[in-house]
Amino acid sequence: MKNKKLWGGRFQENASEILERFNASLPFDKKLYKQDILGSKTHAKMLSHCGILTQEESQKICEGLEQIQEEIENEKFIFDISDEDIHMAIEKRLIEIIGEVGKKLHTARSRNDQVALDFRLFVLNSNQKIRSLLLTLIQTLLEIAKPHTKTILPGMTHLQHAQPVNFGFLMCAYICMFMRDFERLESSFKRNNYCPLGSAALAGTPYQTDRFYTSKALGFTAPTLNATDSVSDRDFALDFLYDSSLIAMHISRMAEELVLWSSYEFRFITLSDAYSTGSSIMPQKKNPDVPELLRGKSGRVYGNLFSLLTTMKGLPLAYNKDTQEDKEGVFDSFETLEISLRILNDLLKTMQINPKEMQKACQKGHLTATDLADFLVQNCNIPFREAHHITGKAVAYAESLNKDLSQLSIQELCSVDSKIPQEAHKSLDLMASMNSRNSYGGTSTQATQAQIESLEAWLELAKLSLKRQNEQ
Amino acid sequence: MKNKKLWGGRFQENASEILERFNASLPFDKKLYKQDILGSKTHAKMLSHCGILTQEESQKICEGLEQIQEEIENEKFIFDISDEDIHMAIEKRLIEIIGEVGKKLHTARSRNDQVALDFRLFVLNSNQKIRSLLLTLIQTLLEIAKPHTKTILPGMTHLQHAQPVNFGFLMCAYICMFMRDFERLESSFKRNNYCPLGSAALAGTPYQTDRFYTSKALGFTAPTLNATDSVSDRDFALDFLYDSSLIAMHISRMAEELVLWSSYEFRFITLSDAYSTGSSIMPQKKNPDVPELLRGKSGRVYGNLFSLLTTMKGLPLAYNKDTQEDKEGVFDSFETLEISLRILNDLLKTMQINPKEMQKACQKGHLTATDLADFLVQNCNIPFREAHHITGKAVAYAESLNKDLSQLSIQELCSVDSKIPQEAHKSLDLMASMNSRNSYGGTSTQATQAQIESLEAWLELAKLSLKRQNEQ
Amino acid sequence: MKNKKLWGGRFQENASEILERFNASLPFDKKLYKQDILGSKTHAKMLSHCGILTQEESQKICEGLEQIQEEIENEKFIFDISDEDIHMAIEKRLIEIIGEVGKKLHTARSRNDQVALDFRLFVLNSNQKIRSLLLTLIQTLLEIAKPHTKTILPGMTHLQHAQPVNFGFLMCAYICMFMRDFERLESSFKRNNYCPLGSAALAGTPYQTDRFYTSKALGFTAPTLNATDSVSDRDFALDFLYDSSLIAMHISRMAEELVLWSSYEFRFITLSDAYSTGSSIMPQKKNPDVPELLRGKSGRVYGNLFSLLTTMKGLPLAYNKDTQEDKEGVFDSFETLEISLRILNDLLKTMQINPKEMQKACQKGHLTATDLADFLVQNCNIPFREAHHITGKAVAYAESLNKDLSQLSIQELCSVDSKIPQEAHKSLDLMASMNSRNSYGGTSTQATQAQIESLEAWLELAKLSLKRQNEQ
Amino acid sequence: MKNKKLWGGRFQENASEILERFNASLPFDKKLYKQDILGSKTHAKMLSHCGILTQEESQKICEGLEQIQEEIENEKFIFDISDEDIHMAIEKRLIEIIGEVGKKLHTARSRNDQVALDFRLFVLNSNQKIRSLLLTLIQTLLEIAKPHTKTILPGMTHLQHAQPVNFGFLMCAYICMFMRDFERLESSFKRNNYCPLGSAALAGTPYQTDRFYTSKALGFTAPTLNATDSVSDRDFALDFLYDSSLIAMHISRMAEELVLWSSYEFRFITLSDAYSTGSSIMPQKKNPDVPELLRGKSGRVYGNLFSLLTTMKGLPLAYNKDTQEDKEGVFDSFETLEISLRILNDLLKTMQINPKEMQKACQKGHLTATDLADFLVQNCNIPFREAHHITGKAVAYAESLNKDLSQLSIQELCSVDSKIPQEAHKSLDLMASMNSRNSYGGTSTQATQAQIESLEAWLELAKLSLKRQNEQ
Repeated sequence: MKNKKLWGGRFQENASEILERFNASLPFDKKLYKQDILGSKTHAKMLSHCGILTQEESQKICEGLEQIQEEIENEKFIFDISDEDIHMAIEKRLIEIIGEVGKKLHTARSRNDQVALDFRLFVLNSNQKIRSLLLTLIQTLLEIAKPHTKTILPGMTHLQHAQPVNFGFLMCAYICMFMRDFERLESSFKRNNYCPLGSAALAGTPYQTDRFYTSKALGFTAPTLNATDSVSDRDFALDFLYDSSLIAMHISRMAEELVLWSSYEFRFITLSDAYSTGSSIMPQKKNPDVPELLRGKSGRVYGNLFSLLTTMKGLPLAYNKDTQEDKEGVFDSFETLEISLRILNDLLKTMQINPKEMQKACQKGHLTATDLADFLVQNCNIPFREAHHITGKAVAYAESLNKDLSQLSIQELCSVDSKIPQEAHKSLDLMASMNSRNSYGGTSTQATQAQIESLEAWLELAKLSLKRQNEQ
Repeated sequence: MKNKKLWGGRFQENASEILERFNASLPFDKKLYKQDILGSKTHAKMLSHCGILTQEESQKICEGLEQIQEEIENEKFIFDISDEDIHMAIEKRLIEIIGEVGKKLHTARSRNDQVALDFRLFVLNSNQKIRSLLLTLIQTLLEIAKPHTKTILPGMTHLQHAQPVNFGFLMCAYICMFMRDFERLESSFKRNNYCPLGSAALAGTPYQTDRFYTSKALGFTAPTLNATDSVSDRDFALDFLYDSSLIAMHISRMAEELVLWSSYEFRFITLSDAYSTGSSIMPQKKNPDVPELLRGKSGRVYGNLFSLLTTMKGLPLAYNKDTQEDKEGVFDSFETLEISLRILNDLLKTMQINPKEMQKACQKGHLTATDLADFLVQNCNIPFREAHHITGKAVAYAESLNKDLSQLSIQELCSVDSKIPQEAHKSLDLMASMNSRNSYGGTSTQATQAQIESLEAWLELAKLSLKRQNEQ
Repeated sequence: MKNKKLWGGRFQENASEILERFNASLPFDKKLYKQDILGSKTHAKMLSHCGILTQEESQKICEGLEQIQEEIENEKFIFDISDEDIHMAIEKRLIEIIGEVGKKLHTARSRNDQVALDFRLFVLNSNQKIRSLLLTLIQTLLEIAKPHTKTILPGMTHLQHAQPVNFGFLMCAYICMFMRDFERLESSFKRNNYCPLGSAALAGTPYQTDRFYTSKALGFTAPTLNATDSVSDRDFALDFLYDSSLIAMHISRMAEELVLWSSYEFRFITLSDAYSTGSSIMPQKKNPDVPELLRGKSGRVYGNLFSLLTTMKGLPLAYNKDTQEDKEGVFDSFETLEISLRILNDLLKTMQINPKEMQKACQKGHLTATDLADFLVQNCNIPFREAHHITGKAVAYAESLNKDLSQLSIQELCSVDSKIPQEAHKSLDLMASMNSRNSYGGTSTQATQAQIESLEAWLELAKLSLKRQNEQ
Repeated sequence: MKNKKLWGGRFQENASEILERFNASLPFDKKLYKQDILGSKTHAKMLSHCGILTQEESQKICEGLEQIQEEIENEKFIFDISDEDIHMAIEKRLIEIIGEVGKKLHTARSRNDQVALDFRLFVLNSNQKIRSLLLTLIQTLLEIAKPHTKTILPGMTHLQHAQPVNFGFLMCAYICMFMRDFERLESSFKRNNYCPLGSAALAGTPYQTDRFYTSKALGFTAPTLNATDSVSDRDFALDFLYDSSLIAMHISRMAEELVLWSSYEFRFITLSDAYSTGSSIMPQKKNPDVPELLRGKSGRVYGNLFSLLTTMKGLPLAYNKDTQEDKEGVFDSFETLEISLRILNDLLKTMQINPKEMQKACQKGHLTATDLADFLVQNCNIPFREAHHITGKAVAYAESLNKDLSQLSIQELCSVDSKIPQEAHKSLDLMASMNSRNSYGGTSTQATQAQIESLEAWLELAKLSLKRQNEQ
């Protein structure tokens, strides 16, 4: 029996079943059906625009493709793994529906540029969706930040109490991360928004096509410049996987913080019951499963990046089948981030913030030590390094008394070093300390509010720019 | 409405749907149903053996579990994502079937040790399956090697012709890689063949259980030593992911070679039509898609390893939900290797070897240059370094004549350097050259045959040892 | 004995020697001396600009710092590991040189923002250097491409001959990759060109500083927005490591091609002796060590990216010592790419291109099969899929005669299928075939020349933009 | 001017300087000088043993090599990058010292098997050193565990208080991890302890050598089986990099715990001043820099593994220059682990354990909830799932009173559910709870002591086995 594949003319044997399963991308690339149909319709229109197909043929093809889209969306389409991939599956069905004219669709293109187009459209679209979710998250964080610019808690370095900060200020730190993530995605979008369709197998096509027509119709900036590069390039996918990795990393950092903050030791926040789970054996447990999963999922997102980097290493030009391994990781990273960003957003919106616990924690860790040092520098003409040293001694003295630095009496404080004047004692007030850090980007309530305003302005612009891009 | 989760006693709110989707592992961990049921049955038997359940209760539970297994295997079991994971899904169904007594099954265990058991059983079983496939592949490679110990081709270093070798000898090189892969898996198996069941949540259980009973019944060497380590350890999964990565790496190397060898430039082999595919646009193409995919899949297998390494980084004791991310990568690496090893085996069995093309290639690259150098050392008392230098000059001379070294006449050869005697000319014979490398591990037909014998003996032992282990 | 560290006031014990070695970053971060001194001078000027230091003090500090720079550059500076890091080493020396006033330099900053500044300056500077090297490489590739737009060779997919292309066209494909690399670096530069100095430990400073002053003086776009984010952010380093990974990946692809092309089987190019090496044992060998190393170095560059991604995973705010692990990988990736790009450039400039071998290779692989199919579509009103099938039969027939498709006689060709007219025979000419692919981005000489012109125009703009940025 | 390289006979041009820098491995492979000299001496002895060299020649070579070793160790040896690698550097110097006979050393070997030997010896030796450090660490952890089997603290899952455990028990959990690490290294050692020397370039040698002689003399199990595999295999290095990654992962987990435990929120331990550092700006800070660095260094160790996995992907047989990239990562992982394990050991030995803080923490988190549930199951014939539910209600009630479960009065407890009897109240005692978990591997003092005994027995055996191996 002869091979029934569309490309099977010269083959004597049928592919074995296991090979079919191994080779086929259909089980996962069927996700690209929309992109494939859109690309094919645009290609058909271009072919008729250039006189390669008649208007009638083009129209028939488009109608056939629309019918297929309906079939797929109504789950009436039969995905048969022996069709190998979504492109073949749709083309075969098209020929079934509209007959011989369906065979003309593949004129002046190849599966190589077809898959490059479909996948690129998917990636660019995913890029936009993730950006939209980032903006929602940033909005939420801003809403949390705004009423908490006076909510004091211990700012940490090395997980040790360092200086008093306000909770809104910490939220702004996370917003800055997600803001960069948005901008990184945006620049990836622009750099990759070029249309590979029409590159054909690797060298272009002898037909008098108009690649600018398809590029424009599909919302791209322009057609890609070189056909061979176009079919072998997967930078756009790698860019997305990397951008996703940084988002996942930032989420893992916030998640770590949420796990810490909701522990018995911190209690800075209480997760909503809806975003916690219980234990099958310990009835009292309320586990921060959601932030833990958010943290753990950084692994898979990193892994997807590394997978594709490995696959692309050392591949000669032009298209190689190895490249088929590009999709699953991208689908997985996209889906992981899509749900992670939504869940994180909901979790933040529903968590309870515990200012009293935060305030209480400020009593530990000599948070105002730097303030004492700064007081000595600014008021007693003591060089910083020496002031630092004197304060160190004061801390050691307080610890020997089992007190926080802020709990030293004036007398105790002054006994540490003869250079410490009585007025230095007031430098130990927590709220004053926090508000003293009023430099640009600092933690004072005023400086934090200024950050919030900047971020709100940025958010409005970002929304607008994304909206415009979506409309293209 | 109250939360219906088994652990839901203290919760006021229902988990949102999206959260359910995010948290649930059921969509992928249902693959563990067999292991879960086997573990639960063994647990129930142990509980009755220790007098914690009555024999009747234990029996009822076992029968219920067997019914569930049937339901699953006949696709009558309804997987409901709100059950979160396979453990809960089965336990809930058990209670539906056998009533209150079903609630006693979870005595003296926790989901933490339950999942540790199920997943470990899966990994150990996968380990055995992959080992079995490696032995099949090695068998095939031996069968290919045996008739080709005189089939000469250019041995390459740096992808440059280096010295003549035989094709069987190269097959032995690949066998050695897969042999190490087998041994690596075997040692991972032994190191991880310990039973975590009975560790409960993290600290053991107050019930008078017998962990040696369950361990033995499930075929483990012994119970694990420390309950907290048992529920947080995922080394067994990482070991499997690493072992898989090396297999994938070795496959990628062989695949690269197969791609090269089946190119127009080499033609050393011809892939069977069944293991090649065509082009949608270029009718003459016969593409080595299978080896390319085999090569490309190293990416995903590496990625899975890196994913779990990332996830496990910095996790404090004991169980953390992050660990739920351990399974999908293992499933994927197992399935990838399972099909890859089968496909590679089939592809090798069906490929055509082209000794004539190999022989022809030996005419290029001055393959016997080392032989000339060695001749000078052994017969003319010239130190190796100088002989090397003289031969270098001979090669340069041949190239200036546009000849291969082996094509120089006696006269031409002797004109290169006065130290070259006429008898040196015979050192340039290809087959003689190949057979001269008769040291242990060398490429001579005789040495290659000795390797094949050693490998056959190893294979028999490996089969036996795997068979015994499977029977445990 | 008391601890002599600048921060040692409260410590009772001396750090052990091994700890010093473990903790210290000085052995590698001394590379940042220039950035550290520049940052400190700018900081001192800002402090005096704001009235925190007198002009005299500031000047004294600057002079001291300049003296230190001289000492370092003349190798008179003693790097003592007990100083921990370059910041401490320089500050200690400053105090030795200019006395007490040196202690005032550290006012209103912390090591946390200091290292964030130094490292960011280094990364941004490295970014510019790599971009400059990319432009040089692109220039070289353009020079190679230009005279070779008619040099025909087999375009490959799946390492199988596919369609005839010209050598210049393939060079353009690589240029497109490196062009994207340039643009990726450029957007990373812009996104990260913000000044963290003045963020102090994590919360800003109580001094009346002017962060816009330092930001502008150091060539940044603006100060960073949030102090906590500023000291914990390493996105700028990750961006650089990712951008480097893609460059390394593209280099590995070109290197693979160079290895193939310089093999005995291809011979498309001959590497210059200067960029090859010999064998210690095989005198005839001329090994493409350089492209092999270029290819292999993708490993270390990828590894550096994953190292830092791992390190950053799950870190809570703000600065954590883990972050100290950020530098060595960046240094290594920068140095690896710097030398790799230079070597690749030189290697390309000195390699010999062998058009005859390329031409000869075109006789194999039925390269014009697609042309035949296209002819049938365009002239005989045969749908593409059927034309593809007929051509497949023609290829099979040619192979059965042991001929290339192009070697079939008119009669032979027409015997394949009654639908093939005699005129179809001319569709098999190689040069005509190549030039027929004249679509935008295609391989025809004309289309390739258009690509070269576009790329030249881009190159001029890129040079200009980089030059302007360097001057800032 | 002619090329002066030993292999330079056929080259017309000198390698450029930058190329030399790029190609040369000498700057890092000089670490292998000992292995290289040992291998060369053994090779020379074998050559004379086989009559290929005279005894005199062999002796002269050995003396020359010993002189070189002295020169290197006394820093009198001049490393010249133009020698490319340590092998060439030593051989060139040997010829300088002993003249022509030195040129005979390279008979019957190649740099390919030479470097395979040297590097393998280094890796196996590193393997033994790391194993020795693991045993020291385990010893320390056992010493910490032993006096703390009654030191109660909250066992955590999800960083939430779960059940009371003792501190010694947690130490045992970490010991189990490091025990597996030891065993993993041990099996890697055995699997890779084969001698590649004598494989020559890729195909063996025509000389009548005795590979068993060298193998035995160098302490290997046997010679490797296949010459081509021997020169291209880097599994032994990958195994080491992977084994190192798991150690680094385990260290990162313990380090995370140490960071948490030394925070103000936990205070379970106090790090010795010697293993903490201060802040340059905040005088009160005592930062756990050492555990943070230990945690962060997992990044570089993972990265080294992925670097080499990437480099090895898709390499055809046999030796390719890419492989030169194998060494730096191994050196770095070895050195990182060597110092990390020593530092961790010292840090653990010097940290202060705070049983009072641990005890205090047990008052939070309803740690004995499971005990209540278990009491209900065991004494009131309530199925576990229902008991779990009732206890959940009790926890919710206690929280509504702002109390810990253990602080409920008998009356309060009984008011939760009519099924709770008065005697249930005693199930809430912490110490009783901890000791009730007396199952094998559980946390009771008795069970923990049994674990300690098992681990001590294992440790003695491991020490013995390592000692024997070292003596081989």
